[in-house]
Amino acid sequence: MAYETLKSYVLKGDICYSKSPTELCSIKNGYVVCVDGKSKGVFAELPDEYTLYPIFDYTDKLIIPGMVDIHIHAPQFSFRGTGMDLELMDWLASKTFPEEAKYYDLEYAEKAYRIFVDSLVKSATTHACIFATKHREATEKLMELMEESGLISYVGKVNMDREAPEVLCEENPTIASRDTALWIENTLNKYERTKPILTPRFIPCCSVELLTKLSELQEKYDLPVQSHLSENHKEIAFVKEVMPKAKFYGDAYDLYGLFGEQLKSNKKVKTIMAHSVYSIDEEVEKMKENCVFVAHCPTSNTNLSSGIAPIRKYLSIGLKVGLGSDVAGGHTESMFQTLCSAVQVSKLYWCLKDNSKPNLSFKEAFYLATIGGGEFFGKVGSFDLGYDFTAVILDDSLVRRPFELAIEGRLEGAVYSSLDLFGIKGKFVLDKKII
Amino acid sequence: MAYETLKSYVLKGDICYSKSPTELCSIKNGYVVCVDGKSKGVFAELPDEYTLYPIFDYTDKLIIPGMVDIHIHAPQFSFRGTGMDLELMDWLASKTFPEEAKYYDLEYAEKAYRIFVDSLVKSATTHACIFATKHREATEKLMELMEESGLISYVGKVNMDREAPEVLCEENPTIASRDTALWIENTLNKYERTKPILTPRFIPCCSVELLTKLSELQEKYDLPVQSHLSENHKEIAFVKEVMPKAKFYGDAYDLYGLFGEQLKSNKKVKTIMAHSVYSIDEEVEKMKENCVFVAHCPTSNTNLSSGIAPIRKYLSIGLKVGLGSDVAGGHTESMFQTLCSAVQVSKLYWCLKDNSKPNLSFKEAFYLATIGGGEFFGKVGSFDLGYDFTAVILDDSLVRRPFELAIEGRLEGAVYSSLDLFGIKGKFVLDKKII
Repeated sequence: MAYETLKSYVLKGDICYSKSPTELCSIKNGYVVCVDGKSKGVFAELPDEYTLYPIFDYTDKLIIPGMVDIHIHAPQFSFRGTGMDLELMDWLASKTFPEEAKYYDLEYAEKAYRIFVDSLVKSATTHACIFATKHREATEKLMELMEESGLISYVGKVNMDREAPEVLCEENPTIASRDTALWIENTLNKYERTKPILTPRFIPCCSVELLTKLSELQEKYDLPVQSHLSENHKEIAFVKEVMPKAKFYGDAYDLYGLFGEQLKSNKKVKTIMAHSVYSIDEEVEKMKENCVFVAHCPTSNTNLSSGIAPIRKYLSIGLKVGLGSDVAGGHTESMFQTLCSAVQVSKLYWCLKDNSKPNLSFKEAFYLATIGGGEFFGKVGSFDLGYDFTAVILDDSLVRRPFELAIEGRLEGAVYSSLDLFGIKGKFVLDKKII
Repeated sequence: MAYETLKSYVLKGDICYSKSPTELCSIKNGYVVCVDGKSKGVFAELPDEYTLYPIFDYTDKLIIPGMVDIHIHAPQFSFRGTGMDLELMDWLASKTFPEEAKYYDLEYAEKAYRIFVDSLVKSATTHACIFATKHREATEKLMELMEESGLISYVGKVNMDREAPEVLCEENPTIASRDTALWIENTLNKYERTKPILTPRFIPCCSVELLTKLSELQEKYDLPVQSHLSENHKEIAFVKEVMPKAKFYGDAYDLYGLFGEQLKSNKKVKTIMAHSVYSIDEEVEKMKENCVFVAHCPTSNTNLSSGIAPIRKYLSIGLKVGLGSDVAGGHTESMFQTLCSAVQVSKLYWCLKDNSKPNLSFKEAFYLATIGGGEFFGKVGSFDLGYDFTAVILDDSLVRRPFELAIEGRLEGAVYSSLDLFGIKGKFVLDKKII
């Protein structure tokens, strides 16, 4: 992959970014400055101290922070947008597992993952939390490709030992643990931008013994965790059956220290749980207490007939929420479409389920797609002073109009027009220009 | 606009089209033949009688019939994808009416409509039912541009005389009628591909006197009709208030002979009604009896927080249904996105409202986007023998995958990937190659 490395630089153009869920800031023909990978903020006139830095002139183009996708399955990218007539459990059995089984073959994995990584580079995404498969070598290859790309990611070798085709199940918890430890050792300090994340597939596919082993690994290496939670009725019913001692779905993770910050033990396990469509109050409370991030995946929850997560409720009680494309339950890596979908399903939730609380606004969804998910990575998703610097340049003149629009309207129009599919003209991640 | 005129021709490639709502046909490296604007069908080997026609070789590309968009507002295209945080009535007042008021200015109208028509040409749409504004001259300009484009359309000068800014209301029903008659006279036989359609905006904006006049014009010129129906709770309540003698919303059109085929009078008024989100049983019955087409507009109904139309129910009782992008309630002219949205909202309807009937499948939605709406134009939307010929060529190699897919899967993937936004490589409408 080809990119340009720059220590410090300035971008000029029509800048737009979130400050808070309700504040979208913009400046026409402004400057945003990156020094050593950090944002120095946005300026109407370029301060003298930065005038010697290289300036990329994107006059009349939109400049926004990169999108943060906190839930995406790399091996499922190959069949995105197909088999969309199935519900979760059938879709796993007939589309997902057969494809994931192919990744024992490193050659196939490399071919498929190259397409995935290339596509992610071309998208508006700069940060991602990625599921790979159970295969250690293929996962390490994916991490190598992600690092080369200049993008920033957590990548998880998936752990699973039941309720899937034998070829996808790890032989036993001890072997799984050994293999996972080897993967962690191989990758923990290998890359700057690509880090391992502990990834039990989801409770239906993880035995108690496996969860116990993963808990030990988590503790030993102090790794973050990603998994799935309360996505679908059948799945939830199954978890009740196989984990009778868990008070609720999330408790099945919590019992093994894989569900966020543990106040009692003072363990801080940074955790993302995808979906939470049907989290009961007790589960939501625990997520709040443990600072668990919800990866809201509206396209996936729609495509797999799962339902609509009550994101307004989660935000109003202070849960941490980001957005996930959840390819390939989600049919596209386009975070612009994911963002629109978050607004849209929230409106349908308002229409069909509960009109006592307002739907998500565009501004709020944009915040979730940037700072909301970005918080999992640190100070990410804004141009405010001190944020890790990412930027995506959009040529929204491709969305032709007979009049001029204010920048906020242009951004909304660009996002609703899926401009990330065909209108990205530049992309910066810390000290690298990757498009 | 530049296009090539061809009497008869052959396309070669990976052909895919609907035969019925549950039958998607495909043939690898097949031939589809157009003679004098009509399809001669699809062949594995090219029959001898067609071998002298020019062949366009699209080997490995997808060839599908053009999309039929039976509800789109041309003047709203300018602000598509903006102001999406509003509900219908507020959105009309703050976004739509102010923009439509500009179309008295023919220069502005031409500028805006050129962008609209250019964009439609570049899309997968070949047939459209279009709302203009109340302005006769601007509407005639739009029709001129549509004819030049090679696309096929009905275009309506909008009629409205109340509940809108004065500048958008026709002065009085007599003047409205005279102006509308002039427009009809000017355009009824002027173009081959572009025809007028009577377009009362919707009941809230049309006085009884105006509807009476439109009824007379309909009868005199035997025009088809398009309007809006039962989209939103507030709108429906308002119709009840202003039209107390109508038994239901649609009855307010029916009282004036503007609601489909009138069995009693033996009048055949070809009619499209957009939305029908909240049609009561009596209304649905009347639509069936009168052969009224429903323009299902899933993106618009979502964006404007209207709700989800029960399309499975409509199909199961035999209503005629096509799809509408409904720009700019719908945020995009992409019929691929509209088609996906039809499947998606149907799934959410299943999740949140009624899981006794299955959601729409991809095949069914593809049928609605082609033959379903195409029926309003005649035999349109398929490659079967005798259909009006349209074709769109898609380079789905842009949706990169590490393995080969069957044609049906490639089509689904192309549609879910919004390939109509960036991957159209050719477009044919009857005897014209317009891309």
